[in-house]
Amino acid sequence: MSDIPGLLDSIKLDKNSKIPMYMQLCNNIKEMIQQGILLPDFKLPSVRQFRDSLKINQVTVVSALKLLENEGYVYTKQGSGTFVSRSIPPASYNVSGDANPISDELYQQDDTFLISNGQIKIGANTVNFASATPTPDLFPVEDFRKVLDEVLERDRGNAFGYQDSQGFYPIRESILRILHKSNIATTPESIQIISGAQQGIDIISKALLAQGDYVVTESPTYTGALAVFKSRGAHIVDVEMLEDGPDLDIFEYNIKKYRPKLVYSIPSFQNPTGYSYSNRKRKEIINLSAKYDFYILEDDYVSDLDFENRNYLPLKAIDTHDRVIFIKSFSKIFMPGLRLGFMIVPSKLTNIILQAKHTTDISTSGLIQRAFDLYIREGYWDRHFKFMFNIYKERYLKITQALDSYLPAGVRFSRPGGGLNIWLNLPYGFPIETLIRQAASEDIVFAPGRIFYSSPHVQKLDNIRLSFASVYIEQIEDGIRKLCDMISRLGNSKGENRRIPLL
Amino acid sequence: MSDIPGLLDSIKLDKNSKIPMYMQLCNNIKEMIQQGILLPDFKLPSVRQFRDSLKINQVTVVSALKLLENEGYVYTKQGSGTFVSRSIPPASYNVSGDANPISDELYQQDDTFLISNGQIKIGANTVNFASATPTPDLFPVEDFRKVLDEVLERDRGNAFGYQDSQGFYPIRESILRILHKSNIATTPESIQIISGAQQGIDIISKALLAQGDYVVTESPTYTGALAVFKSRGAHIVDVEMLEDGPDLDIFEYNIKKYRPKLVYSIPSFQNPTGYSYSNRKRKEIINLSAKYDFYILEDDYVSDLDFENRNYLPLKAIDTHDRVIFIKSFSKIFMPGLRLGFMIVPSKLTNIILQAKHTTDISTSGLIQRAFDLYIREGYWDRHFKFMFNIYKERYLKITQALDSYLPAGVRFSRPGGGLNIWLNLPYGFPIETLIRQAASEDIVFAPGRIFYSSPHVQKLDNIRLSFASVYIEQIEDGIRKLCDMISRLGNSKGENRRIPLL
Repeated sequence: MSDIPGLLDSIKLDKNSKIPMYMQLCNNIKEMIQQGILLPDFKLPSVRQFRDSLKINQVTVVSALKLLENEGYVYTKQGSGTFVSRSIPPASYNVSGDANPISDELYQQDDTFLISNGQIKIGANTVNFASATPTPDLFPVEDFRKVLDEVLERDRGNAFGYQDSQGFYPIRESILRILHKSNIATTPESIQIISGAQQGIDIISKALLAQGDYVVTESPTYTGALAVFKSRGAHIVDVEMLEDGPDLDIFEYNIKKYRPKLVYSIPSFQNPTGYSYSNRKRKEIINLSAKYDFYILEDDYVSDLDFENRNYLPLKAIDTHDRVIFIKSFSKIFMPGLRLGFMIVPSKLTNIILQAKHTTDISTSGLIQRAFDLYIREGYWDRHFKFMFNIYKERYLKITQALDSYLPAGVRFSRPGGGLNIWLNLPYGFPIETLIRQAASEDIVFAPGRIFYSSPHVQKLDNIRLSFASVYIEQIEDGIRKLCDMISRLGNSKGENRRIPLL
Repeated sequence: MSDIPGLLDSIKLDKNSKIPMYMQLCNNIKEMIQQGILLPDFKLPSVRQFRDSLKINQVTVVSALKLLENEGYVYTKQGSGTFVSRSIPPASYNVSGDANPISDELYQQDDTFLISNGQIKIGANTVNFASATPTPDLFPVEDFRKVLDEVLERDRGNAFGYQDSQGFYPIRESILRILHKSNIATTPESIQIISGAQQGIDIISKALLAQGDYVVTESPTYTGALAVFKSRGAHIVDVEMLEDGPDLDIFEYNIKKYRPKLVYSIPSFQNPTGYSYSNRKRKEIINLSAKYDFYILEDDYVSDLDFENRNYLPLKAIDTHDRVIFIKSFSKIFMPGLRLGFMIVPSKLTNIILQAKHTTDISTSGLIQRAFDLYIREGYWDRHFKFMFNIYKERYLKITQALDSYLPAGVRFSRPGGGLNIWLNLPYGFPIETLIRQAASEDIVFAPGRIFYSSPHVQKLDNIRLSFASVYIEQIEDGIRKLCDMISRLGNSKGENRRIPLL
């Protein structure tokens, strides 16, 4: 396309969408650039032309163009306008399969990666069941800006000097307030600040794992953790995740056989299954940790999103043997790009973990730590948490409702009761890759279950993960209905014999 | 001390010091708390009492108290005043030796750690030759605040979403400008954003090193790097750093013998020695990397502080075989607590290093990346660099001058020509620990050479590192004179036979 009117006509904006207009406009143009419809050095319409022909606010246009520029898609020449860049960012993964050389490998790592690197293309109107992270329009930018400003006013240069590797002392205090609900009793001395949960897993592996050690994990699980264990040269032992946690006989059998240093567990609303350990299994696994002398890495990424009052106890809250390393991420409730989280560390491990943190990045950004400390102290956190809780709960009720009404026979799911993910077990041999492509063609995306297994030979191929962190409430029912139609069409086309439910 | 007047009398402020008054006041009180002179729950004087008896501005008092509070030393009760905290941050390392259990180990890691964790105590009037990092009063807080604000205005939520693991595309572009002077030709596709140089070293080790691999390093060197290599289970092979770089025959002998995967090098104004590779040795080591198939990790932490126009070529600039991984830190010129840096990665390695970055912390803070991108694009970086260059150069000239005039016979140093460190070779058997204690008693601190060696059995015990990044110009001549007096007294007391210069 080389003519301005043509370009303007092909832009589709939805004033009723939850997605801010400037983002929609930005996404429209970005897609045309990525698809080569707009060529390098092509001059975009002027702000006025956009404004008048699209009937939108001038500020919206300016914001969209700024966003495109700061993402490297366009450049501006003083006085003469905005042009398509010569070197645009790496082209996005197209779901039909022809990825750039590395994306298949990376695809194994975790879903956020697909989104953050645009390997699953999220357009202005995509129904996104693939991402388990909140969308930028939910971020408390203005409040955080206030505390950032206060910190710069208060601490000046001190906010930018080297920080205590264990973390800024006051934030370790204020985190105790956040923990209050969870029944975990601890002190600032046991808290280690980290640059996100992923770093926490990395640091623990550095401190505890040598080449050839064994790590027991649930299967399927968060593969960002598996990637770390593998990079330390550790062997992964999978134990299948059941709806009330792993079978503890099989679990104990593997513990006896492999004597792991570490067990990696997501006991509440697990990723990807949404399943949770029963409180009985929680107590038993704590006892096993003492009996067989291993540490438990408890990855608590959304236990507080407990929509149906299951009131599960964090392992750390019943950790009578001081063998649980508790990791908390703020990425699902707050803002993932901030890269901030914390760990509660057994007293035996505080020193070696402090040293591992220091060799990893010396310290987490002092500015971010100080701003977030104030964010908690001034009560913003509690308010924002309630806000997010209600939004997520609304979506949870909507998506479970829609699944109840539209899910075809032979497809099973169990209500997780909380968290951000729902796990569908499809009939044996179901053509998932075809479903991915068909859904993508209707602009619906989700994560295939296979990416959450430690290796192809333990992979189950008949499940998918539906997340509702990034999907807008208005999109849910329609999206689930369409998806369910495709599933039942594809199921039928495979004939009865293919429709035995997976056990 | 339990009486307010006594407290106020014992506070010493120096209006002519380069250290901001509020920091001096904060440090005074902090020391009294650390030394147990002020006990938990002791009520501090009111703002007015401080103001009137110390004859200082009210704002100064408020800032000092805020700083104390946000560092966890005091707490405030609405209406009733400011009190000493019950749980104060870990007590500081006292140079006479009785450290808390872990500091000796950590002490091996690097000097910034000592300062950032208060293990070397820096009071209001300390002459600090120990730290190679700039002091907070030199940080461009106001300018950075401007760009932070612009970014929040421009990008809103997008600044806080998951970021491309390789780094925000525009900052990879703007970094090319910074590189301009260094004669390194590269593209945004070869640049990997990292959360500080330390993380870069960690990521490269993850990508390249397995247990039992060999790494060749200079000796002495930056021990923060050694700690990473060791944590990967790699063996360290030391080659002594000479004034024009390592002896390349010995170097090649070790390469042949151990076949290292990686060579870690700080070719310009090395830490801790300040020595630099001659351009001849730079070319030779590049050729060796191709001949023996190893990668070179070039740690460029201050090559641009070239005060005497030595014009050394970065290894990356002559890297004809694409075997140099170039790491650049901003901590010495900009603000260490920001945790930001970048690498230039050989094309063969970009994918595995991208994956290692992702497993390490997914991405570097998007807000920090976007703000620093703008900081460069709007010309702040160039201006700030010139500012820092001139301050450091002034100090460099002053300290070398002072050493020329006061250094006693038998003590050698060679002008590095740039960087932030000067290496003193003291007579064989010189009682350095005594010097450390005597200097500390006069409030002069520096780093003993021994902490920069990979292990005790390669340690030379007769050298010390003097850094001038944190020492104020007014303190230098007097500090060096005092230090030199102590050195010559201690040298003499040991008798002639001890004064043979180290070869």
